[in-house]
Amino acid sequence: MSTLGEVVVVAPDKPQSAMGHAITVTIPLRLTPNKIFGDIKAFECSGTPADCVKLALDKVCDRRPDIMVSGINHGPNYSINVIYSGTMSAAVEAAVDGVQAIGFSLCDYSQDADFSHCRKYVRQIAATILKNPLPYGTLLNVNMPKTDAVKGVRICRQASAKYAENFDERQDPSGRTYYWMTGKFINLEADDNDTDLWAIDNGYVSVVPTKFDLTSNGVIQHLKQLMHE
Amino acid sequence: MSTLGEVVVVAPDKPQSAMGHAITVTIPLRLTPNKIFGDIKAFECSGTPADCVKLALDKVCDRRPDIMVSGINHGPNYSINVIYSGTMSAAVEAAVDGVQAIGFSLCDYSQDADFSHCRKYVRQIAATILKNPLPYGTLLNVNMPKTDAVKGVRICRQASAKYAENFDERQDPSGRTYYWMTGKFINLEADDNDTDLWAIDNGYVSVVPTKFDLTSNGVIQHLKQLMHE
Repeated sequence: MSTLGEVVVVAPDKPQSAMGHAITVTIPLRLTPNKIFGDIKAFECSGTPADCVKLALDKVCDRRPDIMVSGINHGPNYSINVIYSGTMSAAVEAAVDGVQAIGFSLCDYSQDADFSHCRKYVRQIAATILKNPLPYGTLLNVNMPKTDAVKGVRICRQASAKYAENFDERQDPSGRTYYWMTGKFINLEADDNDTDLWAIDNGYVSVVPTKFDLTSNGVIQHLKQLMHE
Repeated sequence: MSTLGEVVVVAPDKPQSAMGHAITVTIPLRLTPNKIFGDIKAFECSGTPADCVKLALDKVCDRRPDIMVSGINHGPNYSINVIYSGTMSAAVEAAVDGVQAIGFSLCDYSQDADFSHCRKYVRQIAATILKNPLPYGTLLNVNMPKTDAVKGVRICRQASAKYAENFDERQDPSGRTYYWMTGKFINLEADDNDTDLWAIDNGYVSVVPTKFDLTSNGVIQHLKQLMHE
């Protein structure tokens, strides 16, 4: 991003996996300067990814940023993962406030994941949005395949998928039961080639225009009839 | 709900305000039987609202429930609040798994809030959905006004609104800065009468059909042209 403009970083001070759109309302937040990025103005924040964005916009940035990018997340945020993702919630938070926003994720959970092939696409997609801002209410969910032999960029829709939970039930040393969340990811439309899941499985960068108006407009008339409005 | 069928309760063991769609992946979860509802099978769960639903479906319920209801939340979840709401995320979680789901909220933060007028609408709306299941991918976000002089039920869309953050900056006893989140709710379309905000402001119960496919379909063609796909 530093090749595109002046960068300001506000990042959580600890892992925030699966934090969703949680925000911190019952305890105060801390913001601590951090030199990890050298000359780049950077802060670590005690809160959630969404908190970071709220604090950045209100207390850190001197002016409205031209764009907010989140990530690169270590692991995919395609399909239904978007609702659990702290990375995407940070981007949503910026977009709600009217800032151009993109969440980037790499589809590789490995500790040794190679992020270097993402550089080109992050720069290209961010530059495109800087030049051609998205309409209010829209942001981008960008996932990048593991391979560096990327075939290109595909504009997609969010695939329908879910997790089939299968909690691992164990006993602690005092005999009390506890549960570890485990689950299997199930693609509910494996045959369709216009989804983010298809793009990633076939070696493309997936770009899903994403919104935070959750209204299911197609069901409004049906409900009006049902409820005799 | 007990007038409509057999009820099973799985609820968080502590407040979960603004928890969004957070799930617990780095620590194990606990599930403890609770007798607060007398003969109704009830558990308290150490996790988030979404965790409660995942555990309920995998470990508590003997069969797929006919409907999952969440709430009644103490405070509104209309408009943009839907993305921060633990109550709504629990309902989303059930809907993703294919269970009929409704999140209920009362637009009253008062400690002495009177929930009694909600009874009629909870029962009526839940009964309607039990008889007429929603298509997969849809759930309901129901908000109820503070007044017991409710004018009726309105099927609505989610109003466009945002919070203008204004963090309260303070010094702790050792001189370090900390921040309390505060913000002003801003309705971005106050003139429209088809939104959930309008319905509540005018004494109606608002019912918004809500989805978890966040694709902004209207922007796909535009992006395809921009990115020369």
